[in-house]
Amino acid sequence: MASSMHPSSPCFSLQSLPSNGSVSKSRTTSIFLRLGSPTAISLRSLIASRGSDRIGIGGENAGRMRSKVLAVSTQVMDESVSKATISKVPTIVKVDLGDRSYPIYIGSGLLNQPDLLQRHVHGKSVLVVTNTTIAPLYLDKVVVALTRDNPKVSVESVILPDGEQYKDMDTLMKVFDKAIESRLDRRSTFVALGGGVIGDMCGFAAATFLRGVNFIQIPTTVMAQVDSSVGGKTGINHRLGKNLIGSFYQPQCVLVDTDTLNTLPDRELASGFAEVIKYGLIRDAEFFEWQEKNMHLLMARDPSALAYAIKRSCENKAEVVSLDEKESGLRATLNLGHTFGHAVETGVGYGQWLHGEAVAAGMVMAVDLSHRLGWIDESLVRRVDSILKQAKLPTAPPESMTVEMFKSVMAVDKKVADGLLRLILLRGPLGNCVFTGDYDRLALDETLQAFCKS
Amino acid sequence: MASSMHPSSPCFSLQSLPSNGSVSKSRTTSIFLRLGSPTAISLRSLIASRGSDRIGIGGENAGRMRSKVLAVSTQVMDESVSKATISKVPTIVKVDLGDRSYPIYIGSGLLNQPDLLQRHVHGKSVLVVTNTTIAPLYLDKVVVALTRDNPKVSVESVILPDGEQYKDMDTLMKVFDKAIESRLDRRSTFVALGGGVIGDMCGFAAATFLRGVNFIQIPTTVMAQVDSSVGGKTGINHRLGKNLIGSFYQPQCVLVDTDTLNTLPDRELASGFAEVIKYGLIRDAEFFEWQEKNMHLLMARDPSALAYAIKRSCENKAEVVSLDEKESGLRATLNLGHTFGHAVETGVGYGQWLHGEAVAAGMVMAVDLSHRLGWIDESLVRRVDSILKQAKLPTAPPESMTVEMFKSVMAVDKKVADGLLRLILLRGPLGNCVFTGDYDRLALDETLQAFCKS
Repeated sequence: MASSMHPSSPCFSLQSLPSNGSVSKSRTTSIFLRLGSPTAISLRSLIASRGSDRIGIGGENAGRMRSKVLAVSTQVMDESVSKATISKVPTIVKVDLGDRSYPIYIGSGLLNQPDLLQRHVHGKSVLVVTNTTIAPLYLDKVVVALTRDNPKVSVESVILPDGEQYKDMDTLMKVFDKAIESRLDRRSTFVALGGGVIGDMCGFAAATFLRGVNFIQIPTTVMAQVDSSVGGKTGINHRLGKNLIGSFYQPQCVLVDTDTLNTLPDRELASGFAEVIKYGLIRDAEFFEWQEKNMHLLMARDPSALAYAIKRSCENKAEVVSLDEKESGLRATLNLGHTFGHAVETGVGYGQWLHGEAVAAGMVMAVDLSHRLGWIDESLVRRVDSILKQAKLPTAPPESMTVEMFKSVMAVDKKVADGLLRLILLRGPLGNCVFTGDYDRLALDETLQAFCKS
Repeated sequence: MASSMHPSSPCFSLQSLPSNGSVSKSRTTSIFLRLGSPTAISLRSLIASRGSDRIGIGGENAGRMRSKVLAVSTQVMDESVSKATISKVPTIVKVDLGDRSYPIYIGSGLLNQPDLLQRHVHGKSVLVVTNTTIAPLYLDKVVVALTRDNPKVSVESVILPDGEQYKDMDTLMKVFDKAIESRLDRRSTFVALGGGVIGDMCGFAAATFLRGVNFIQIPTTVMAQVDSSVGGKTGINHRLGKNLIGSFYQPQCVLVDTDTLNTLPDRELASGFAEVIKYGLIRDAEFFEWQEKNMHLLMARDPSALAYAIKRSCENKAEVVSLDEKESGLRATLNLGHTFGHAVETGVGYGQWLHGEAVAAGMVMAVDLSHRLGWIDESLVRRVDSILKQAKLPTAPPESMTVEMFKSVMAVDKKVADGLLRLILLRGPLGNCVFTGDYDRLALDETLQAFCKS
C-alpha cells in the first residue's frame, strides 16, 4: 500500500496547509461493499489472495482497514525552513506492487533536480514523447535534466498533436516510427511529458515497443498528476470507445513538478479537479470535506492547496492500485462517473469535452442514479452538485447526448461482463461506493431520460 | 520447467517411435556460456533470482543442470493400445510460469475433444481469429468444439488475409473492430487458429483488447506448433523490422492437433523443421542426432516422427521459457539464425520467404560465423548444411540481399543493447551456444561478404 517517505530531510513541501488541511490518522473512510453480490465475491477473493493482513471489508474488519490500509502519514513541516530548501525535497508516495513498485515524486522545482530523473533512466537512449503545447514550455528543461553531467545519454523526442482526438493508432505509430528510426533498443527509456493523453500513449508505446522498454511519467496537468500517470493503465481510443486498446504497464517513476501547473489553462485545471473530487466521494470523506472548504484555494492555484490535493489523491490511487493492480474489482471504483463520461467523450467526439468535464457530468449522473435507487441521501446529491459548480465543472452532459447514444457507447464499456453493465455507484454515507451489476435497470433508464432531451 | 504428463491413462500418442527415438534421461546437452562476458553476468543474475535450485551453468553445476533441468520424461506406449484409443489421450507438456502456467496438449484428433478447449474458455463469448486459408479447413470444426453441449457460449470469427505481409497494424485493427462491434467484454476469450502469423497477431490483440483478455492457441503449422505458439511472444511487424511491436502474453493453453498438418503444404512443413533443427543445435545434441537419422520420416510426414519432434521441441521451448520468460538472456538463444533471418524477411519483403526458410539461411550464416571465430569444428558446419538440405531448406540468403541490407535491418534487431548487436552463435560441441556481443566484427563482415554478392 502507499506510504509517504521524505528522504534525507524531515521537511516537505506543505509548509502551510490550508485550514482543515491537517490529516487525522484515524480517517473513517472505507470501501462499502455489498456482501453477497458477485462484485463482493470477487473482491473477497482478491483480498484473500493478497493475504489477510492487507485489508478487511466493512463490519468487524473496518477498523483494521482504517488503521492499516488507509492510514496516511503526513508531516507538517517546520515553518522555519526556507522555501528554497523546500523545493529541493520532494514528497514521495510509493506505489507498492512488489518488484514493479515505484515512487511518485511530488514537489516544486523537481525538474531542476536531474538526479531524480537520471536514477530511473536505463540504457543510453531516451525518447521523450510530448505534444505541440508542452514541447515549447518544458521539453528543453527535461532534456537538460536528463543529460546534465550525464554525457552518455542521448535524447530523442517526438512531438505529437495535442488533444484526445489524437489518442489513436495512427498517432501511436509516429512514436514507433521515431523509436525505430532512432534505433532505440530494449534498454532505452521512454519519457511521457504531458497530460493524460501523452501519458497513456507513451506508456502503451513503452509497453509494446520491442515487447517492453523502461518508462517514466512526467505529468504536466492536474488530471495526469492526480490520476492517469499513476497505476499503469496505458492505451489508446477506438472510434467506438475510449481506452479500448491498451496494457497495464507500470512506470519506473512518476515525477510531478507542481511548477508545471503554472502554465495550465483554467479549463484543464478544473478538469483535473473532477478526479480529485472523485477520490473523496468513493473512499475519502475527510478529503471531500477538505475540498468543500478549500475549493476556492484550489481554483486560485494556491500552491500548498494544490500540493496537498495532489499528494492525497496520489495516496488514494496508490492504495487502490496496490491492492488491485489489474482491476479485478476494487480498482474499478476509481471509475466513478467514467462510464457515463466516456459515453459523453465518445458521443460528442474526442477532444470536444475534456476528460474531467465528462467525468464531472458522469459523476452527477451516477449520483442521481444512486439516489433514485435509494442508496444515498439527497443532501449528498446537493453537495456533489455544489462542489462541481465551485470547480466550474459541468453538472450535466451536453444537450446533444441522447439516451440511445449513452446506451450504445456504454454497451462496449470495459466494465461490461457477460453482457451485464456494472457501474460504480455511491451507497451509504459519504465516502462509500459499490461496484455492481445488481441495480434496477428502470432506474438507470430514468437517469438517462432525466439528463437527455431525447 | 517442462514436464510430460499423461492424464488418466498411461498411454499416449507415440505408438511407434522411429528408430533412435527413445530418449535417454541422461542427455548431455547444456548451455555453454562465456563466464565473464556481460551476457554471462546477466544470465547469472537471472539464475540467482530464480533460486539456486533451478539451474547451474557449466563446470561443476553442469551435472545438476542436466539432471534437474533437462531431464525429460517420456513414455513409450503399449503397442497393444488401439489407434482409436491413442487419439483420445493427448500428451501434455507444461509451461511452468507460476500463476501463468499452462498446458500444451499434443495429439491426433484433439479438435474432436470439446472438453479440452472448453475447460479453458472463460466467459460467454469467443472470438476465433483465423485466415482465409485455414478458415475453410478448420473453422467449423473449432466452432463445434467450442459450442458442443455448451449452449451458453457464442462464437464470433474474424478471417484475416493469409501471409506475413499482413502481420501489421492495419490488419490487427480488423481484430479490434470485430471484437468491439461484437461487444466482446473482458471475460471473453480469443482463439488463434492458424500458423505463426495468426498466433502472434491474435495474441497481441488479446494482450491489448480492454488491456487483456483470455487467449487460446490452436496452431496449425509445424512452425507454430513447435515454436511460435509456445512462450507468449506476441506482436506485429513494422515496415522497418520484424516483431518490433508486441507483448509478452501467455495463453490459457496451446492445443496441437497433429491432424491439422495433413493439409499443410510441403514448403510450410519444411519451414517448421528449421525451428526443430534449431533446438538440436542450441541445446539438444541427442535430438539433433535423432533428426539426422529421421529427417526422411519427418519429410514423409510420418505421424509418429512428427508427434515426437513436436513434443520434444515443445519441451525444449517450455524449459527455456520457464527459466527466462522475458528474455533476460537464456531465452535469446532460441533465436539462433533469426537476426540474419529477420534481415532476409524484411529485406526481400514480408511473405516472400517463409519464416523458417529465412531462419534456415540465417542459421547457416550464424554457423559460418561461429566457425570463422574458431568456436566450432568444420564437421558441424557440414552437418548443418546437410540436414537443412535434407529438409529442402535454403542454405544461403537470396541473391538480392546485400551486405548493406543485412546491416541496416540488423541495426534495429531487438537484441541490440546500447548500440551493440548481440548474436546467438554456436560454440563448443554440438548442442552448445552463446548469446554474446563479444565477437570479432571483422569476422561478421566476412560472413556477410561470403553470402552476399555486393
